[in-house]
Amino acid sequence: MITGTDISFFFDPGSIAVVGASPTPGKPSHIILENLKIIGFKGTTYPVNPKYSYIGDLKCYSSLTEIKDNIDVAIFVIPASKVLETLKEADNLKGAIIVSGGFKEVGDEGRKLEEELKKVIERKGIRVLGPNCLGVYDTISSVDTFFVTGEKVERPKKGGLSILTQSGSFALMIMDEMAKDDIGVARVVSYGNMVDVSESDCLDFLADDVATKVVVLYIESVDDGRKFVDAASRCAKKKPVVAVKVGKRETGVHAARSHTGAVSGRYEIYRAAFKKAGIIEVDGYEGLKDACKVLNSYTPVEGKKVLIITDGGGVGVSMADTCEDMGLEVTGLTEDTRKRLRSKLPVISATGNPIDLTGSVTDEDYVTALEEGFRDGYDLAIVTTLWAPPELTEGLVDKLKGVMEICNKPLIICSPGGKFARRMSKVFEEMGMPVFFTPESAARAAAVLTGCKR
Amino acid sequence: MITGTDISFFFDPGSIAVVGASPTPGKPSHIILENLKIIGFKGTTYPVNPKYSYIGDLKCYSSLTEIKDNIDVAIFVIPASKVLETLKEADNLKGAIIVSGGFKEVGDEGRKLEEELKKVIERKGIRVLGPNCLGVYDTISSVDTFFVTGEKVERPKKGGLSILTQSGSFALMIMDEMAKDDIGVARVVSYGNMVDVSESDCLDFLADDVATKVVVLYIESVDDGRKFVDAASRCAKKKPVVAVKVGKRETGVHAARSHTGAVSGRYEIYRAAFKKAGIIEVDGYEGLKDACKVLNSYTPVEGKKVLIITDGGGVGVSMADTCEDMGLEVTGLTEDTRKRLRSKLPVISATGNPIDLTGSVTDEDYVTALEEGFRDGYDLAIVTTLWAPPELTEGLVDKLKGVMEICNKPLIICSPGGKFARRMSKVFEEMGMPVFFTPESAARAAAVLTGCKR
Repeated sequence: MITGTDISFFFDPGSIAVVGASPTPGKPSHIILENLKIIGFKGTTYPVNPKYSYIGDLKCYSSLTEIKDNIDVAIFVIPASKVLETLKEADNLKGAIIVSGGFKEVGDEGRKLEEELKKVIERKGIRVLGPNCLGVYDTISSVDTFFVTGEKVERPKKGGLSILTQSGSFALMIMDEMAKDDIGVARVVSYGNMVDVSESDCLDFLADDVATKVVVLYIESVDDGRKFVDAASRCAKKKPVVAVKVGKRETGVHAARSHTGAVSGRYEIYRAAFKKAGIIEVDGYEGLKDACKVLNSYTPVEGKKVLIITDGGGVGVSMADTCEDMGLEVTGLTEDTRKRLRSKLPVISATGNPIDLTGSVTDEDYVTALEEGFRDGYDLAIVTTLWAPPELTEGLVDKLKGVMEICNKPLIICSPGGKFARRMSKVFEEMGMPVFFTPESAARAAAVLTGCKR
Repeated sequence: MITGTDISFFFDPGSIAVVGASPTPGKPSHIILENLKIIGFKGTTYPVNPKYSYIGDLKCYSSLTEIKDNIDVAIFVIPASKVLETLKEADNLKGAIIVSGGFKEVGDEGRKLEEELKKVIERKGIRVLGPNCLGVYDTISSVDTFFVTGEKVERPKKGGLSILTQSGSFALMIMDEMAKDDIGVARVVSYGNMVDVSESDCLDFLADDVATKVVVLYIESVDDGRKFVDAASRCAKKKPVVAVKVGKRETGVHAARSHTGAVSGRYEIYRAAFKKAGIIEVDGYEGLKDACKVLNSYTPVEGKKVLIITDGGGVGVSMADTCEDMGLEVTGLTEDTRKRLRSKLPVISATGNPIDLTGSVTDEDYVTALEEGFRDGYDLAIVTTLWAPPELTEGLVDKLKGVMEICNKPLIICSPGGKFARRMSKVFEEMGMPVFFTPESAARAAAVLTGCKR
C-alpha cells in the first residue's frame, strides 16, 4: 500500500540496494556505489547482481529477495524491460529509485510499460522516484544516487537550497554550477517521469524540512494542478519557492514530451498557478541561477522599490532600463534627499535614481549614497562597483557590509569586468554579499527578491 | 577649419601631448603617460605642465605653444574651466581628446561651457573627442589614452573588434571582459559628450578600416539621425555592425541625460534606424558580450533556421523556448531525416528539433545528428554538450570542428556547468569555436548571427 505522502525515508534511508550493481568502473551502477561511499552514506549498502558474489568489499546479492533485511530504497540500474519482474519478486522494499530510461518518454510501448509499473507499485505499496531519473543527492543525510562522477559534475557543499527537477540534466547543470559558485544545497531530487512521487509530494516534504531554507523547482509539467498548488502554497508560506517553467512554446512543448513524456501544457495556466501558490517565477536557466545565488544570502522583501547606485554612468543607465523591464520600481529620490546628497557628494555626481557617483568616487561616497537613499523607503539596492576609479579601495566591501547591517536591506552587488573585478567579488562573497557580473543578472536577482517577473 | 570627416589621425598619431601631465603615480595624466609607454606608442610623447621640466625621462613643456612641432593629438587632463583658454592659445593642434568632465553632463553652466568649446574648436579647425571621455585604445597603432591602469582594467589583445561608446565605463567593462575571454580588439573609442567627433564620424572611419572586422556600438543618443543611418549603412554593408541602445525607459533616459548630457529620445526611433541601417541590435550588456564573442569567430548567416542538438533533454527544451522567444525558427526535421536518424542513433534518442541524444550519447552521435540535420537546410546549429554522459570524450571537440568545416555552418557550443565544462570550453575555444555557458547566452549568440532581435 502506498504510504500516503510520507516519502521522508528517501531522504534518510537506513539501507540502499543497488540493483544491477557492476564491479566495472565507469558503469552507472558502479559510479552510484562509489558515490555512496564518497558522500559517506551511513546506512547499509546492498549490491544486487546474480553474476557476482562481491563487489569491492561489499557482499553482492543475487536478488532483492535474498537480502534478509527491509530495504528502504532500491536503486534500479537495469534495462526497463527487467524492472517490472524484479519489482514483482521483491517483498522487502519501501521505496525505489528507477534510474532506467525506456518508459513513457520513448513512446507508446514505454508508456504501456510505465502504466504496468504504476499498477505493480500501487499494489505492492512501494513508493517510486522516476523512472528516467537520477534520484537523490542529499547533503543532510549523506545520500548520493546520481550516476555521474564528481570529476564530471562537482557536488555542492551542504547548505540551505533544495532543488526539485523533472530533468536530470538540469539537476546536474545546476549542481555543478552551485559547486563552482560555492553555494550549498540540502536536497536535490531528480524525479523524472513521476510514475509515483511527484513534485507535490516532494514539496510537502520540503515544507516541513528544517534543513531546507529555499526551494527551487524546474518544471516541465505538473500532473495534478490542484495538489501542486496546495503543496506549493503550504511550502511558500514557510520559505521562498522559486520555479522555472520550461516547454513554454510549441517546440519546447514537443521537446519536453519526448524528454520526460510530459505534456507540458499551456504556459499561462502554469503562470497563474505559480502566482496563486506564492511561487516566485523566474525565466530560464540564467534566472534560476541568479535566484539560487541571491536567495542563498537574502530573504525576499515587501515592496518593489529599488535604489540604484553606480560609479559608471553607462552601467547605471543600462541597469535602470533592465530593472524597469523586469517590473521593479526605479522611483526617484525626494527633493530633500537630493539636497542632502548634493551637499555631501562631489558636485559631478548625479543625484537621481541611479545615483551616479562617477569616476571621482570614494568608498565613503557609496556609504553616503546608501544611507541617504534608504531614507526614501527603498526596499533594496543594487550597488554597481566598477573598480577603475582611483580612490576606490578594497575597504569598500567592509563599509558596504556595515551599511547593510544598519539599514537592514539587501545590497545586490554588480561587479562586471575581468580579473580585478572577479578578485573583489571573492572578497564580497566572503562577507556574505552575493555578486552578479552583469547588470541584467543583478536586476534579475533584485526581481527575485521583490517577487517581480519580467 | 574642421577637416571634414577625416579623423584617421586619432588612430595613427605621430605625436601626442598630455596637457596637465603629472609625475605623481596614480594621477590620471600620469597613468596615461604610463599606458602610452606600456602599449609601445611609436610617436613622440609631449608632457605639458608649467610646474615641471621633466616627467620621468620625458622633457615637460610649459605650454602647448612651447612645443615646436605639430601635435596630432593633445589629451586634456585639466579642469573643464581651463580647457578653453589652453585650446585658444594653441596653434599647432590637429586634434584633441578632452578627458575632463564638467561640461554639458553637469547642467546649464557646463552646457554653456561646451557650447563655447564647440565654437572655439570650429574656429580653429581642431577635431575633438569628448569631453567627458576616455579617448582611444588602439592595438593596431599602439595608442592607449585610457586613464585607468592595466591592473584595474586589463587590456585585450590585438584583434578584429572595434568598439564605439559614449560611456567610458562601458568601454572599460567590455575591454576588461574581452581580455578575460581572450577576444582581441582593433580600436576602442570612448567619445563621451560628442562636442565634435560623433559615432557617425567613427563609423565612417571604421567602414574603411581594414583592421576592423566587426563594429560594436554602445549608444545613449545620436545627434544627427540621418548622418548616423548613412554612416552605419555604409559600414554595415562592409562588416557586421552590432548596437546596444541604453536609456530606453524613462528612468534610463533621465540617467543618460545626467551622464553624457544626452537626450536619448524615443527608443522606437532608434530601433527603426538600426533596422534601416542594417545594424544587428542586441539587448543590454549580456547581449553585447555574447555578440562580441560570436562575431569574433563567425560571420552572420542568411536565414533564421536553427538546429538544436543536446545530450540533456531539459536543456534542449529550455533552449528551444529561448530560441523561439528570440525570433529564431526552430523548425522540425523532415520525415526523411528523422528516419535516417532513427536508423543511426540509439533508440532512446529523440529525433525532433531539438535532437536529444540523451545520456547514452557518443561522440559519433553528435556528428551523425549534425550531418543529417544540416541536410534539412538549417542556417546554424546550437550544440549543447553536457559532459556527464560516460561515453563522451574530449575527442568530441575535434569531431565537431570537422563537421563544421565540411558543413560550413556556424556551430554555437553551449556548455553549462562547473569545472569540467569550463576546462572543455578552453579546448573548444583553442579550436576557434566560441562556447556559451547558459542556454540563453547561446540563443542570444545565435540570434546575433541570424539578425534576430528579441
